[in-house]
Amino acid sequence: MSGSASRSGGSAPAADMDALVNRVVDRVRERLQQDAVPPLPVLRGTWQDETALQPLVDAGADRLGTSGSIPPSGQALAGFIDHTLLSPTATRADIVKVCEEARKFHFASVCVNSTWIGLVAQLLAGSRVMPICVVGFPLGAMATASKASETRQAIAEGAHEIDMVINIGWLKGGDWDAVYDDIRAVIDAAAGRPVKVILETTLLNRDEKIAGSAISKAAGAAFVKTSTGFGGGGATAEDVALMRAVVGASVGVKASGGMRSADDARKMIAAGANRLGASASIAIVTGGRSGGGY
Amino acid sequence: MSGSASRSGGSAPAADMDALVNRVVDRVRERLQQDAVPPLPVLRGTWQDETALQPLVDAGADRLGTSGSIPPSGQALAGFIDHTLLSPTATRADIVKVCEEARKFHFASVCVNSTWIGLVAQLLAGSRVMPICVVGFPLGAMATASKASETRQAIAEGAHEIDMVINIGWLKGGDWDAVYDDIRAVIDAAAGRPVKVILETTLLNRDEKIAGSAISKAAGAAFVKTSTGFGGGGATAEDVALMRAVVGASVGVKASGGMRSADDARKMIAAGANRLGASASIAIVTGGRSGGGY
Repeated sequence: MSGSASRSGGSAPAADMDALVNRVVDRVRERLQQDAVPPLPVLRGTWQDETALQPLVDAGADRLGTSGSIPPSGQALAGFIDHTLLSPTATRADIVKVCEEARKFHFASVCVNSTWIGLVAQLLAGSRVMPICVVGFPLGAMATASKASETRQAIAEGAHEIDMVINIGWLKGGDWDAVYDDIRAVIDAAAGRPVKVILETTLLNRDEKIAGSAISKAAGAAFVKTSTGFGGGGATAEDVALMRAVVGASVGVKASGGMRSADDARKMIAAGANRLGASASIAIVTGGRSGGGY
Repeated sequence: MSGSASRSGGSAPAADMDALVNRVVDRVRERLQQDAVPPLPVLRGTWQDETALQPLVDAGADRLGTSGSIPPSGQALAGFIDHTLLSPTATRADIVKVCEEARKFHFASVCVNSTWIGLVAQLLAGSRVMPICVVGFPLGAMATASKASETRQAIAEGAHEIDMVINIGWLKGGDWDAVYDDIRAVIDAAAGRPVKVILETTLLNRDEKIAGSAISKAAGAAFVKTSTGFGGGGATAEDVALMRAVVGASVGVKASGGMRSADDARKMIAAGANRLGASASIAIVTGGRSGGGY
């Protein structure tokens, strides 16, 4: 999977992307006024270096039990999937149901709003399914201190991963320092648990997608993620390939929003995703096709 | 305006509403195990008691400089309006612009996401326009402790009012205790500043609207509010009248979402609203008609 992602990235016009990533890196260096930022080739990723893709393939293989070179199908997809229920109308009974489903189908995780993370952690205890939680969701326009506080609370209640929304307004306004600090504060609050940064790609232009991905990687994000599912659109293979090209092999790419079938899921993996967020998870692994939902 | 709101409420089938409000009151009493809850006639409001509406009219007159009996038009509407910019793509420049507009047109407030409240408080300093902030927005599914934390942070940065979203899932699941505690925690965190509770009426059935309004009042909310603007619909005159009927004269009703013109605004006031949330505020006060927006 990573090979094809790399090729997608490599075949895209890359000079302007490189220039933008370089600008982000320079700015982050300035911000830190130290050498804590990895050298550019590492930060920019290894998308142009086929041999360096092995760690990603290995990571994928380790996580998923596949070679990673061919998108899996059916039940083997389950290990890719964050089984997701983010609707504001979800009740306790709905949350219990998705946890039971995740145990049954061996999804990677159950992803919920922070009000439910304690319950989900209890319900998944003793299983290999991770309880994970969104933060600053879905607008990303919550104050940085409050995103950090929501993160600390979620971790304390048992969240294994945090899916935060980037500050879209700051990204659009070119306030890269503030975007970086916002992500950094959540990563610090997560106390070592992986943090995914949701870019909400449907609201961004190409430069903003590139800058958002590069800043996320520079700040130490474990994943960049396409969509909240609430932003009027979802993941596209093009966006996934672009994000993979920017972050390289050492950062994950999560495709989310709008996937309804195994075909949709396999397209995202072929484009470079190594995690999928979906509410249609059961349809995806059983070969069905689902309607809408969060 | 209050008289007509009262009559709308009074003419609706009210027996089942009374029964539901009574159940909420009983449950809140149990929850508190004390006498802190006002006696039922006060809690249920005074919608069946025309004479008791005077305080609301007075409050409206005080705030708005009108008699309150006839919905105002044109510039006089401005004092009703929370000038609102909640789009996740809003940049610093957009926020500066709405603050300038609010000063120019004398809107009641500027309402923003918490990431911007400190800036807005600075920009509005020395004016009569209040900086106000949404919390747990727009899903309401953020953990209670995090809503409280976001509120404390917003107040510290200068918010004069807090517009929180009710926990919709708990309301739908009948977890009234949790709904009450969630609102109560935000009100405590607001340290005396008024708290509005957004019900997101488009996602609720009639019983849920009634229970949500009654619980909000019991918890000490200053206003109940119809909509986030992100929930696939907005305020209706029917919902405003129902909410006014439940909360009576001593709690405010804010209509929000979907208002594009002075006519829309006047309908809401006639139905019982004493505050309006809108992004089309300038169109409303200048007699124009706006397109969509948050």
